[in-house]
Amino acid sequence: MKLLEDRILKDGKVGAGNVLKVDSFLNHQIDVPFISELGREFYRLYKDEGITKVLTIEASGIGIACLTAAYFGVPVVFAKKTPTNNISGDVYTAEVYSYTHERTYAIRLARDFLTSEDRVLIIDDFLAKGSALLALLKLVHDAGASVAGAGIVIEKAYQPGGDIVRAQGVRVESLARVASMDETDGIRFVEE
Amino acid sequence: MKLLEDRILKDGKVGAGNVLKVDSFLNHQIDVPFISELGREFYRLYKDEGITKVLTIEASGIGIACLTAAYFGVPVVFAKKTPTNNISGDVYTAEVYSYTHERTYAIRLARDFLTSEDRVLIIDDFLAKGSALLALLKLVHDAGASVAGAGIVIEKAYQPGGDIVRAQGVRVESLARVASMDETDGIRFVEE
Repeated sequence: MKLLEDRILKDGKVGAGNVLKVDSFLNHQIDVPFISELGREFYRLYKDEGITKVLTIEASGIGIACLTAAYFGVPVVFAKKTPTNNISGDVYTAEVYSYTHERTYAIRLARDFLTSEDRVLIIDDFLAKGSALLALLKLVHDAGASVAGAGIVIEKAYQPGGDIVRAQGVRVESLARVASMDETDGIRFVEE
Repeated sequence: MKLLEDRILKDGKVGAGNVLKVDSFLNHQIDVPFISELGREFYRLYKDEGITKVLTIEASGIGIACLTAAYFGVPVVFAKKTPTNNISGDVYTAEVYSYTHERTYAIRLARDFLTSEDRVLIIDDFLAKGSALLALLKLVHDAGASVAGAGIVIEKAYQPGGDIVRAQGVRVESLARVASMDETDGIRFVEE
């Protein structure tokens, strides 16, 4: 999606440890009118899939998930990372390894909010090694729901997550696919 | 706001420890079309205030903040609870005591995303003892920005947060104000 690639080239920064910083518009400050256009694109891609629910993971997936779900007119449910006494009853759980924070954590989703009736669109801001997306897919599977696919804002296509998930037969639509990035040479996208 | 009060009476549950569970539509599953109507109401209340930015705190404030900011056409910035190497440069910080999790934690906001030019609307899902809202107000103050007010979905009016913040001259608009709640007697709202 050229709109997004242009924005990443303009405002994204490649930081130490090969981190792509997009905190000015995506995951700390959220440029709501702009991100809403990404939501419109996810709607265009998945509008014929009978989506009943958008699933994401806290915290940085929530904004894009809500702005996407607004087009579908369906609820968002977000997996929680922290143990909380605000979740009632039984939960689905999965484990995620965060390469950013270098630790494994459990995610939780109340069983009430994902059922075998649901047709799910998974939304997240990043896809790299695939740990979070695979965990979300496990939640969908455990619920007996069906997955229409994933909508990812930025895929690091030089990391294996996208291939791993697509190899499972899951549709993955990434609005920008980074082929390489480097503090000196900058960011290059996969030519579609 | 009657729409919200009716929804709380229908779907809210009073749990152990006097917790109001609204996780079916507000803070775990998010009923996006419904929450978007709350955003429209915040817009109606603050539309003449020259809002340039909506400020909230992760994670459960992000959805309502984004769906509100969509009406204003302005960005959201959310204070982060967890230390992260995704925030670049200098940050504003404040401390929040969570009565839910019984611990104090620091929140952080990158200085780049809140400046003395900003006119801020603070959005959050709950206001009870006021710890989170006071911390967000400190961030606004430290940035030299001005605050138009706060938009709260549910205020526990029998707890002191709302009074404390209003006594500082800050406008606080709560869409539902709970006067009392009890596992047996249910939920009562402040008569406006």
